[in-house]
Parts: sequence; C-alpha cells; structure tokens
Amino acid sequence: MKTETSSETQVSIQPDTIALKEKARQEGLETIWERFAAQQPQCGFCELGLSCRICVMGPCRIDPFGEGPQRGVCGADADIMVARNLGRMVAAGAASHSDHGRDLVETLLAVAEGHAPGYQIADPAKLDRIAAEFGVAADLPPQAKAKELALAMMEEYGIRKGYLTFTKRLPASRLAKWQALGIAPRGIDWEVTEMMHRTHMGVDNDALNLLLQALRTALADGWGGSMIATELSDVLFGTPKPAASQANIGVLKADQVNIILHGHNPLVSEMVVRAAQDPQLINRAKELGAAGINLAGLCCTGNELLMRRGIPMAGNHLVQELAVITGAVEAMVVDYQCILPSLGELAGCFHTLLFSTSAKAKFPKAAALAFSPETGEALGRQIVAQAVENFARRNPDRVFIPAAPVQQLTGFSVEAILAALGGSPEPLLNAIKAGQIRGAAGVVGCNNPKIQQDFGHVNLTKELIAHDILVLDTGCAAVAHAKSGLKVPEAAELAGPGLKAVCQALKIPPVLHMGSCVDNTRIVYLAAALAQALGVDLDQLPVAAAAPEWYSEKAATIACYAVASGVYTVLGVAPPVLGSKTVTDVLLNGITAPLGACFAVEPDPQKAAKLIIRHVEEKRRGLGLDARES
Amino acid sequence: MKTETSSETQVSIQPDTIALKEKARQEGLETIWERFAAQQPQCGFCELGLSCRICVMGPCRIDPFGEGPQRGVCGADADIMVARNLGRMVAAGAASHSDHGRDLVETLLAVAEGHAPGYQIADPAKLDRIAAEFGVAADLPPQAKAKELALAMMEEYGIRKGYLTFTKRLPASRLAKWQALGIAPRGIDWEVTEMMHRTHMGVDNDALNLLLQALRTALADGWGGSMIATELSDVLFGTPKPAASQANIGVLKADQVNIILHGHNPLVSEMVVRAAQDPQLINRAKELGAAGINLAGLCCTGNELLMRRGIPMAGNHLVQELAVITGAVEAMVVDYQCILPSLGELAGCFHTLLFSTSAKAKFPKAAALAFSPETGEALGRQIVAQAVENFARRNPDRVFIPAAPVQQLTGFSVEAILAALGGSPEPLLNAIKAGQIRGAAGVVGCNNPKIQQDFGHVNLTKELIAHDILVLDTGCAAVAHAKSGLKVPEAAELAGPGLKAVCQALKIPPVLHMGSCVDNTRIVYLAAALAQALGVDLDQLPVAAAAPEWYSEKAATIACYAVASGVYTVLGVAPPVLGSKTVTDVLLNGITAPLGACFAVEPDPQKAAKLIIRHVEEKRRGLGLDARES
Repeated sequence: MKTETSSETQVSIQPDTIALKEKARQEGLETIWERFAAQQPQCGFCELGLSCRICVMGPCRIDPFGEGPQRGVCGADADIMVARNLGRMVAAGAASHSDHGRDLVETLLAVAEGHAPGYQIADPAKLDRIAAEFGVAADLPPQAKAKELALAMMEEYGIRKGYLTFTKRLPASRLAKWQALGIAPRGIDWEVTEMMHRTHMGVDNDALNLLLQALRTALADGWGGSMIATELSDVLFGTPKPAASQANIGVLKADQVNIILHGHNPLVSEMVVRAAQDPQLINRAKELGAAGINLAGLCCTGNELLMRRGIPMAGNHLVQELAVITGAVEAMVVDYQCILPSLGELAGCFHTLLFSTSAKAKFPKAAALAFSPETGEALGRQIVAQAVENFARRNPDRVFIPAAPVQQLTGFSVEAILAALGGSPEPLLNAIKAGQIRGAAGVVGCNNPKIQQDFGHVNLTKELIAHDILVLDTGCAAVAHAKSGLKVPEAAELAGPGLKAVCQALKIPPVLHMGSCVDNTRIVYLAAALAQALGVDLDQLPVAAAAPEWYSEKAATIACYAVASGVYTVLGVAPPVLGSKTVTDVLLNGITAPLGACFAVEPDPQKAAKLIIRHVEEKRRGLGLDARES
Repeated sequence: MKTETSSETQVSIQPDTIALKEKARQEGLETIWERFAAQQPQCGFCELGLSCRICVMGPCRIDPFGEGPQRGVCGADADIMVARNLGRMVAAGAASHSDHGRDLVETLLAVAEGHAPGYQIADPAKLDRIAAEFGVAADLPPQAKAKELALAMMEEYGIRKGYLTFTKRLPASRLAKWQALGIAPRGIDWEVTEMMHRTHMGVDNDALNLLLQALRTALADGWGGSMIATELSDVLFGTPKPAASQANIGVLKADQVNIILHGHNPLVSEMVVRAAQDPQLINRAKELGAAGINLAGLCCTGNELLMRRGIPMAGNHLVQELAVITGAVEAMVVDYQCILPSLGELAGCFHTLLFSTSAKAKFPKAAALAFSPETGEALGRQIVAQAVENFARRNPDRVFIPAAPVQQLTGFSVEAILAALGGSPEPLLNAIKAGQIRGAAGVVGCNNPKIQQDFGHVNLTKELIAHDILVLDTGCAAVAHAKSGLKVPEAAELAGPGLKAVCQALKIPPVLHMGSCVDNTRIVYLAAALAQALGVDLDQLPVAAAAPEWYSEKAATIACYAVASGVYTVLGVAPPVLGSKTVTDVLLNGITAPLGACFAVEPDPQKAAKLIIRHVEEKRRGLGLDARES
C-alpha cells in the first residue's frame, strides 16, 4: 500500500492546505505553523506531565533523569503529578462536551415551553424513543413529552439520580465491570467536579485512584453529556440519513456570498442555514452581484450540518485560518471549542466578518453575539444579512480558492446504518462472522501541527480498509478522509476483497461518516448494540479506535470513555503521561484485565494499522470466528 | 508595634515548629522546607501564569520580556493564557469545597432515611431555620424535614433551579450587581463545569469574560458549596458556641494515646471523637500503660472539632509533618484537602499509623479506609481501637513535645456572636458607629513555605487590632493566631483602646475564631447580616479580608467570592497572574467600579495592615461615620 504523503517539508498531505499556506507565506500572514515553530523547543517537563501548578507553594518540577527533585513541595511524586494532570485534562474534555449537551437540553426545554421560535421537534419518532429510555410517559403529547425529557436530562447532570440513564444501553457485563472498579458514572457535572476536587493539593494522591476517577469522568461524557448532545441534536434538527456532499476548500464559491460555520454546536448554525434560504436575503445577495449564498462548514459544527443538511465541508482544524486566507469568506460564524483566537486578527486582514455566538466564548476582534433559544432564529438572520452586505467589501483580486471539491457521502447515524441493513444489525454481524468484514474501527479526532495534516488519518484508514476493516469516522478525521476521496462508494476499490464486495452491494463507501466529535457516542452506541445482539461485552468485539492526530482535552476524554467502554484505542500523539512509568503502564497494560481494553501510542499509521489489525483478528479468534495471522 | 519574628534563618515564628524542624534535621528527616528548597528556582513562566498545557499542540510559553513568542500555538496571548489558568484554579477550589459540602448533604439524607448510625440532627433549631430558607414545610417532623432539605440542597448542585438559595441572604443591591455582570451563580457543579469548558482550547478567549466566570464559579462556592458544608455541619454536629481550648504541638500528651485528626471534613473525625469516649477503649489504653486517649486537631478538620467540641489544635498546615516527628502520635487520621502525600513515608519512620478515610483521597503508605454514612460510626471505633493498640509500639525515647500549649477561646459562629450581643447585631453596629471598633477584618488562609510560618498572619492581625479593627479568623490563620496567644480575652491588651474596651466588656478576645476554611461563609454571612441591618451593600461596610500566607486553589476561590461579595481582600502571596497586565489590572482595579471591591497584593504585613486600615476608614467616611486619617 502506497503511503499518501507529500514532501517532508509540507505541512499537509492536502493540496488545498499546501496552496493556501503558500499564499499566507507570500502575504506575510502568520498561521498556526509559524506559532508552533516559534514555540520550539516545547517544555519537556510539561510534555512529560512532570510540572505541577496546582498550588502556589509551587510551581514544581520533577527531573525525569532522576538527578534533580523527585517530589514537588507537597511531596507528590511523578506518578501523582502525572495522574493529577491527566485527570484535569479529562475533566476539561468531559466538561466541554457536557456543557455543549446542556445547551441542547436548555433549548429542548425552551422548545417545549414554546419560547424558542424557529426551533422544533424535527424527529418526533426519535423524541419518542429517547423519552421512553428516560421513563417519560409514552402517551404525552410531543411538547409535554419534550419538557419531561428535558427535565429528566437535567437530572443527569446532578446528584439526585446517581446513575446515567444511557448506560442502560450497555450489556450488563460492562456495567458490572464498572461497578467492580467503582467507575460507574453518576451525575455528569458531579464527576467533573469530583475530578477537580480530587486533583486539588492534598486530596487524592494515588495514581491509580486518580486514573479511575478520570475514567469515570470520561464515561460521564460518553454515556452522558456527549450522548445527550448527539441525541437531542437529532431530536431538534433531524436524525442524519445518507446524503451526498463535498469537501475541501473548493466548496467555497468565488461568485457567491460565502459563510463559514465553525465550532461544535448546531444551535446557531442551523438558524443560519434557515436564514440563508430566505428569498429576500438571496435577492439582496444578487443585487450586490453575488450568484447566491453559499454555506460551508468547518470542524464539528461543519460535521453537524454535513450530517443533517448535506452542507459541504470546507476543512478541518488546521484549515480554519486558511479558509479566511482565501479572501472569499464574507462571514465566519463560530460557536465554541477548537476555535483559534488568532482568527479575529486574521479576519481583519481581509474583509471577513467574524461572529462569535456564545456568551461563554468570546474571541479577540470578533463581534460578540449571544445565542439564546429565544433569539437564535433572529441571530441567524442577522448574521446572514450582515454577511450578504459584506459581499460588497470583498476584493476579488485577493480571492484564491485553490481546489476543486471532492465528493463524499455522509449521514451514517446508527439509525441510518440499521435502516441500510434492513432494520437489524444481523447483516453486518453476518458479514463479520463470515469474515468478509474482519471488524470495524473508529478513526476519529483532530489535527495537530505536530503531525503533517491528515497524514495519520488517511494512511491509517487506507491500511485498515485494505485489510477489510470497516472504518467509522467523526470529527477532523472524517474531513481528512473526505478530502482524500475515501468517502465515496468508488473508494471500495481501495478496500480488501471482502469489504469491497459488501460496500459495492450496499453502495456505500468503506469509510462511514458518523458525525461530529460528540457523535463518537454513535460509534460506542453502535458497538453496544452489536455486543447486545451477539450476547457479548464490547471488549469481545473485533473493533478498535484510533485518534491519529488528536490535540484536545476533549479527545483525551473520548479516548478514555472508548477504552473504559471496552474499545482498544491507538493514539497517534502521546498524552503528557510519559513522566510516570506507573501511569503509562496502567494505561498501556494495567487496565486490560479489569476493562478488557487499553491504550496504545503509535505515531506511524502503518504500525498503528498493524496493531489494530492484530487486535481485530485476536478478537475474532476469541469469538470463535476465523482469524488471520497478523 | 513590635514585629513578631525570629531570625531570618528560621522557617517559622513559632517555637514549636522551630524545635521540631531542628529534630527533623538531626534525624535526617525530609520536610516540606527541604522539598521547597530543592525546587528553587521555580519556573518563571508558570509563576507568571505564562505557560499553557491546555492542549497537546502545546505546551506553550509566552516570553514575559517580549522577545520570545507572544502567543501560544492556538494564538492565545498572555491575557488569555493567564485568565484561563486562573479560571481553572478557581474552578478547582470551588470544586473542592463543594464536593466536601456534597458529602454532608449525602450524610444528611442518610440520617433522614435512618441508615447513618451514630449521626443525628444535633441542632434541630438550625435545621428548622435552614429548611425554612429552602422552602421546606415548617410542620414536617425532623426526619422528613431533613430529607426534604437534603434533596433541596442536591438541587443546588444541578441545573433545574438556576440560582442558589443562600444568595437570598444578601442585600438586593449585591444581587443586582451580579445580575448586571452576569455572574449570579446558578448550579454549583454547573459553574465548575462551565469554567472548565470555557478554558478548553478555542472556547472563551476573552480575559474579562473568563474572569467573570471565575467570579461566578467562586460565588457558587461561597454562597453554595462552602455554605452548605458549614450549615449542614452545624445541623449534624451542633452550632459552635464559645469555649476554651488550647493550641500548639504541646496539646499532644506524652503519657496518652495521641490521635491527630487532619483534613477538612468533620464526618469521620466526629465519630473518632465519639469512639474516644468509649470506656472500653479508654480502659484498654490504660491497660497498655497510657493515661488516656488524647485527640488533637490539625488544619481544618481540627478547626471543625475545635469549634464544636473544644478539641485542642496541634497546628496548621506546616505542622502536619512535624506532628509525626514528635514521635508521640499513635494515629493520624486524614480525610481530604491539604494533606501532604509525604506523611505516609514519614509515619513509617515512626510507629505512627496513617489512616485515610475517603475513597476520593488515598495517600502513599496510608491504610485506606472508606467512609460512608452507613459505616462512619464503626470506622471511628476501628480507628481509635487500632490507635490504642499502637501505643504499645511507641518508642518513648523518640518522643519530643517541645512546647506548653497556649490557651484560646473558640466557637464564634454567627449564632454565637449574635447571642453574645444579646440576639441582635445592634450592639456591634453601635460600637462601630461610635468608632470604638473601626471595622472588622477576616484574616484567613493557609501557610506557605514561601513565607516564614505565621509571620504574615500574626503581624497583620496585631497591627489591625492595635488599630481597633476586630479580627475574625478561620483556617490556618486561626491556628497561627491561637499559637501566638491572640485568642484569649487577655489579648485585648494588644488592642487599641476602643476595641480593648469592647473586648473587656464582653470578655472576648480581639480575634474571634469563626472556624474552618469552608466557614469563611460565616464571615460573609455575618457581613451580609450587618449590611442588611444597616440597609447598605457589603462593599459599603468598613470590612476587609486578608490571606497573608495562602497557598491553595481553595484560597484563591475564597478570595474571589469575598471580593465578588464586596469585601476588599489583600493577598500576601501573588497569584500566578502577573504575566498579564490586563488580568492584573482588572483584579487590582477594574472590578472596583462594578463590584465595589478589589484585590491587593502585599507580602509585608505592616503594609497590608495599612491598606486595610485605610480601606476601613474610607468606608467609615462613606457611611458618614467619623474617620481617621490613615
């Protein structure tokens, strides 16, 4: 298998990124790669997890070479320090997804109470299903049902329930493992708060105990906050169905008003989509010389809109600055998470308007608009109207859109996958049992300037599908795959013979888009459904996950809930834990016995693929299926 | 006024600390000061708040001299970086107090449901008052009332209420200020989670917006988690009343079984107190040659027991290792927060047993016992029994208790203060109006090896009382004052003539002990009551606060809720914010207009006293009272 890469000196394997990076260089515009270079060398203590700022007796450092101090002022050793730092990363990641979920719960309540104009119950059948899971009476009318569900979900964040409802989706054997370890998640915010408490000076000073709470906190995300975000987004905006769209910076249109929707939460961007269809605004755009209003997504707000509306995807994390540098963007609309604070200054070098839309997330030199369920619809219209007017300020001489868009299929929610299979997971399980499909892998996560953009995602995924492993993707990884042409049915040609035949029969790509980063819950939910259907626990399935280019605390949290749910997970970037042999060993080995899964760290995508292929074949053997030597 | 200090080369102003530190040196035992010395020089980036580990594109650093990088990889500048780091400190502090409060709520529920043997409603009248504040029906029997209150308090941590009940204790003008700034606290865990979300990469990138959320998170502590901890501890164990006790390491008894109770939460230690009165266990101690069972407190668990039971206080934060080094401690019982992880190894150099008692907080080489409301009573007995047996292992030749205890008065809850004043704040207000008492200052907070132990507390407080400012203390500061003899009625001699006369009339010290660190809520509650009685807001009162030797994230949070509540606060140690001129300026000046209070940083206790005296006199002038030039 040929490795997909450009020259070592390029920042990306993607031509659009390379071309725009060159434009930035010519125009003297700073991008993330220059800032990354300026930070070299990065602090080795921090990289290893061996620095501590938890109290002002410090800051403290532990000498990884064993010559300098081996304990902080309080007496914390390397194991404690590393575990505490990791615990806080996971807490922040869980907090982020869960606070995103909270915004959807609040909006659902506002819809139910009738003061969220423009919002509605887009998928009443899904509302019925989720409400039933939460014990809401089936015979209530939709509004009342939505209200009861919203109130019940609010309790998931609190103390009174003491367990998370969605964990009932899991096999009993998985819940028993969590109970045995004391990591069954309780209230979502509770776990975050307890993690923060336990990492305070003089509280939890046992690395293993800290790691267990980190896993519990992550599970409160995966089976709590993130899952609420996914499921309620479907209820409010529709459950994704397969649809065709496009990817890369070429989705911007030189002759149209371009609005980029960036961030993670669909609440505002859905209203922008609605406003962009307003004939009045389209006419105004035409008056100003534009052929129309063109929306494009970035990062996970992009994924949300792509999954449900087929809005094309301009790019992933490392493209956000470059999108502005096209000179073709009238407005970039951001909500929260992964939004570079450099965007405002960069937008100021062009005519681009930058709108922030959450009171929780303001940015330098951005116009701060604050979403609420009451104002969301009006906000969407206001943004589109201003973007349209801004077309007049565009300088056509500076416009550079250096790529033709690539086709992709999207919209593979769990519901859509099951529908494609005829309503039951049996055909998929049969293909796995027959060995046509060896197993499945979630290839997910971010971009990181430490890695040539998309190199990890694309090469790992190509290798996996070539070995008949179905790939499920989300987040920036999904965008990488789309840009590299792996998300069309024709990409089945790159798959091994078994997977290829299945894809061709079903007319699907070998890489299925399951959504945004919170939608990693779709992957674990699907895994839980498959495990339930087979009568096994998740760790017995021939499945794995990988985050080849992750950068964020949220990704660390996702990896933790994947592993704690029983899914072997390979990271392409080492988390800051290598300063503790104990913590590193627990994550790589020690948790396998109690949880049936562990982490691996492997930056080389070919080697990462080998790890996953070997894991999948081992799990097949464990299920009594045919297994290849690997 | 003579400054209380030993030679510059001493680590403490306290003779017991100095003597035991010398014993440690002679025996080659490492203490916190050696570890602190080994950490020098501490990382300047971290000290200034200019390092960021929030994502793995980093770690990043900003050059404070303006020559190296001025932005992290994401584009965050010094202001954003510093504000995010501070926000996380405050979140961790709020989480700690609030998770402590949660343990009390859970225990109250268990008491109400009849499965917490040994625990009871010790103050039914206080239960009635608090339940009324939470809208619980007055005519319920105590158990049912306790249950309703516990469930109502659980809601304070969640989303559904959307405000904190205890904020109703504040003047409307204070709440209006919070509403105007958007910092009225909602659910306790919610605010912590949102702070963690907003400090994730690419979320809130506006220093001011981040600081506002930090204040809101702190308010969720002060008027939420901490206040719940204080009030429910009173309900379960009794509201403190004035009582005599003792302080310093001399409270250990060479001829008795010594058990030290260390940490912050009274749930286990109260059961130890109960078990230590068991005649069977006392007889067993006598069989083993001990004269009895002697309990002593450390840090805030010590303050809790001192306030309610008169248990003598062995020392504050920097004494915890030295207490073991006396060789006279059969058992040290820890719960959580501020417990040095070095204690286990040190205990192993003696016969001392170290018991941890919270599943949330394990320590190296400690016996891990896990409290629950169901098992707390049995746990207390188990600990005392083991401590008694351990007396046989004591080596009398190694015992060194180098001080005679100092007398102190304790127990000044708000209720006790009002009772002493005849049931109303009027006499205190009249003394303030008349100028006998110029005002009041809370002198609170920790020890920190960066400061000669107790130097900051004792010298600041002496100066304040000499200027007729009544001092209210909690935490390690309270222990410092007690050890230095400021907590007896005779210390009125050190006060200015007005305060002296009031103290002599009421037979109280000029420094009133209000409890543990969570009990700083007693101070702000008292301030709120005084403000209500005067018909003014808190920032108009001639009151201030100081944390001369703080070290912990909790202390940072307390300082933030004090300031946001309108109380001018002087810190003796700079928080890690000096890398941002913007953040520093907002904290020192910018928040004064909207909140009526701000921070100051002043390590010199004489100068800190001057700041507070000037502030008090200014506020007197504002109220139309006589004011001295200062």
